Amino acid sequence: MNAEQRRALEDEVKTLGDEIRQLKAGKADPDLIKERVNKMLAKKKELGVTDEKPGKFVLKTGKGTRDYGPAQSALRNAVLEKVVETFNKYGAETIDTPVFELRDVLMGKYGEEGGKLVYDLQDQGGELLSLRYDLTVPFARYLAMNKITNITRYQIAKVYRRDQPVMSRGRYREFYQCDFDIAGQYDLMLPEAECLGIVNELLTKLEIGEFFINLNHRLILEGMFAVSGIEAKDFKTICSSVDKLDKTPWAEVEEEMIKEKFLKKEQTEKLGQLVRFRELNGDLSNLELLDKMSQLPELGQNEKFKKGAEELKVLIGYLEVDGVTTVRYEPSLARGLDYYTGAIYEAVAPKALEGTAAEKCEETAGQPVGVGSVAAGGRYDGLVNMFDAKLKVPCCGVSFGIERLFAIMEARQKNTIRTTQTEVYVVSAQKNLVMERKKLLRTLRAAGIKSEMPLKANPKLLTQLQYAENARIPLAAVIGEREVQEGIVKLRNVVTREEKTLATL
Amino acid sequence: MNAEQRRALEDEVKTLGDEIRQLKAGKADPDLIKERVNKMLAKKKELGVTDEKPGKFVLKTGKGTRDYGPAQSALRNAVLEKVVETFNKYGAETIDTPVFELRDVLMGKYGEEGGKLVYDLQDQGGELLSLRYDLTVPFARYLAMNKITNITRYQIAKVYRRDQPVMSRGRYREFYQCDFDIAGQYDLMLPEAECLGIVNELLTKLEIGEFFINLNHRLILEGMFAVSGIEAKDFKTICSSVDKLDKTPWAEVEEEMIKEKFLKKEQTEKLGQLVRFRELNGDLSNLELLDKMSQLPELGQNEKFKKGAEELKVLIGYLEVDGVTTVRYEPSLARGLDYYTGAIYEAVAPKALEGTAAEKCEETAGQPVGVGSVAAGGRYDGLVNMFDAKLKVPCCGVSFGIERLFAIMEARQKNTIRTTQTEVYVVSAQKNLVMERKKLLRTLRAAGIKSEMPLKANPKLLTQLQYAENARIPLAAVIGEREVQEGIVKLRNVVTREEKTLATL
Repeated sequence: MNAEQRRALEDEVKTLGDEIRQLKAGKADPDLIKERVNKMLAKKKELGVTDEKPGKFVLKTGKGTRDYGPAQSALRNAVLEKVVETFNKYGAETIDTPVFELRDVLMGKYGEEGGKLVYDLQDQGGELLSLRYDLTVPFARYLAMNKITNITRYQIAKVYRRDQPVMSRGRYREFYQCDFDIAGQYDLMLPEAECLGIVNELLTKLEIGEFFINLNHRLILEGMFAVSGIEAKDFKTICSSVDKLDKTPWAEVEEEMIKEKFLKKEQTEKLGQLVRFRELNGDLSNLELLDKMSQLPELGQNEKFKKGAEELKVLIGYLEVDGVTTVRYEPSLARGLDYYTGAIYEAVAPKALEGTAAEKCEETAGQPVGVGSVAAGGRYDGLVNMFDAKLKVPCCGVSFGIERLFAIMEARQKNTIRTTQTEVYVVSAQKNLVMERKKLLRTLRAAGIKSEMPLKANPKLLTQLQYAENARIPLAAVIGEREVQEGIVKLRNVVTREEKTLATL
Repeated sequence: MNAEQRRALEDEVKTLGDEIRQLKAGKADPDLIKERVNKMLAKKKELGVTDEKPGKFVLKTGKGTRDYGPAQSALRNAVLEKVVETFNKYGAETIDTPVFELRDVLMGKYGEEGGKLVYDLQDQGGELLSLRYDLTVPFARYLAMNKITNITRYQIAKVYRRDQPVMSRGRYREFYQCDFDIAGQYDLMLPEAECLGIVNELLTKLEIGEFFINLNHRLILEGMFAVSGIEAKDFKTICSSVDKLDKTPWAEVEEEMIKEKFLKKEQTEKLGQLVRFRELNGDLSNLELLDKMSQLPELGQNEKFKKGAEELKVLIGYLEVDGVTTVRYEPSLARGLDYYTGAIYEAVAPKALEGTAAEKCEETAGQPVGVGSVAAGGRYDGLVNMFDAKLKVPCCGVSFGIERLFAIMEARQKNTIRTTQTEVYVVSAQKNLVMERKKLLRTLRAAGIKSEMPLKANPKLLTQLQYAENARIPLAAVIGEREVQEGIVKLRNVVTREEKTLATL
């Protein structure tokens, strides 16, 4: 930049500064002020003038995000390993999609409501991109783009929502989702049975305590609403009230439907008898409950209810053969119904935090004890259609509340998890043995044994043993001058301190 | 919008339309035309007019990104499994950091040059964020923020660069990085030996063909430059010329240094004798080469060279004990020297693609055959300092060119990889056996056997066997009415078609 250009730039900065002062004095639109300030700072930067001190940073992660250190990462990886093992056992493949999608692709589903929570990338020339909000839209885009009509896949990846984070309760802006879906034209309820089998098997394997899986069907809800005289246009909003019944007493839910959603008392009374059928008949089996509802004069004649009930009966038959005993037909389950077209299900583990520090924490904070849904899913036959009207890909799947499962596992674990997998720590009892330690380490590693040694030339014996203890490395291989001369090594159990003498090769 | 505003907007659209037509007729800059078209479309959108049909999307991934389908994902996961296994064998922990960082944190390192390649998130109120560009800056930020002075960690995660993608050659805007680093105050060259041990072990395990690891030291480069009369201010730019010697003949590199970087012929001649020392003494061992250089009159007296050479000798001694024979001292290696403060190394696998389809592909395209660097690293003692002037955390590490390794593994594999892990496919020989198949599947899964069945009520026998063959499931468990009656199952080897009859329990 020559002197003239420099002067011009300095003038611009000055003018902008004056303008900003005037705008502030006039209490102008904050966005406008910000825009001017940014412009001025950019010009200042061109001049080499900055208000920041060099080398000084705010050391934090972005709002609503966090680092996962070694202990948390080890726990998460251990949980994910079990998840993947289970998916593999059921024959799933996996795919991977980019962290951002074209904005238009994302906005198709969520519309303006969801759009507010989506992280947009800055327009730096080229396409408009946004960070993915879930894994379902990228999956549907992948299927439509590649004209895939048939796949059983899982995907475990992070998604992004510019939500108000409640970090004390585990709600972050960056978090994992973990989806398993069966796409393809299959026979009635066979895919649903696979999904529920996976939920049952994985939650059992994770030992999160007692859990059950609520089951319902969109057509059953539509049927119950119809015979209660509720119009189709109110389906979604009334669903969201009904779905609160697992946490809220009927009287409150009813009041909400009357006062805020303008149902009549006769409508809510009729609806209440139906959606509370499980609550009012707690000891009936799933089939008995369905049969009893089918015998109700009006509902039993409703075509939608009949179809939904028939389908669930098929599913319940399959689950019996599969040995899945944790499923409970629950006519008040009404989640995600924008989206689901058939069976829906949701797993809950009400006592997962019982007796843990996290439970006490919640009690102190006056929050309801419990962890809510740990997995949810259902049949959604229309999603792929959104991207390709000609492509019919019926889907059914389940999404695990994997962040919640991480939190449960963290709360329930008795010992802190090991952060390394080291089996043997190579220790020297005297100075000047670095080469001998290295030789021993080489032998161990060549044999496939996970092993380390201190990266110091002359570490102290006690320090080394302490390290092994703290890192919970089970064995220490100790060598001193005598051991080297005699071609032996002392293998020490770090916990019991028992020692065995072995010959080195 | 009132009628007047609407008319004004309509006029603007019309004006823009005229302008675009003129620009197109005049064959103007396509970027300019695009910009005008986008502006017009935005205005049209405000008017509620769109050229798009509702529900119609451009079905693509963002520029420079791609999906990884089941086959690619399976291959990647298999490679990553080996990588993680090796890191664990060397006692590493792992951490996880958010995909975006505060923009100020990122910009600290790359300055304006790198800044152009960073994806910024839109300012949606709140902090200014950018997608991570590598894993090193987040690692340094993590250490400084948590005042960690001691950790051996790996991190495998995707990073983002708004580079010009060359997708035919595997250069994407979203790609994996895979870093292993040892942070902490340790004794001379012990951490470096661990890093090189990992490189050696992992590349051996991946069977990518012959590879070697070039080794050099920043102080050796500084010493050689000093005795050649090259000023410190030219260090970085001359390094980038010297580093080309692995692919470019000396004459060309020399010409570049003289013509573009204004060295004198006497300087380049002196420098050439030194940086080409390996090239000119191909059959000397690493120690012999270092000794021979140390005997050169001027260089041997240079303090920096002496220190660098002493340090490398220690390292070379360790590597011998460790059995790492692939390391080659190479005085022309001069990569990443903005950053590295001590030993540097880089692994190359020049024949990794030999005999593969990828090699032929490269030949046809007139591109140089070979894959360049598959791992690189060194000592960098200053990075954490950037974030916290008081915190001294010496670091040394290695970053694997994991995307390149994926490509090599993909090119070298003889059979397409299996995308599922299914061991047994449950097949029915007749109709109406869905419940029987389910029972058998339950038995298999309860025994921990990965197994599937067709999700159809009445699949055809031939279709089922064909599926098992295509999916390369090794075994099919076939049941028909007779088998059910007799309580047996036919276990069929899908490849050899041998059958064994087993009793079901």
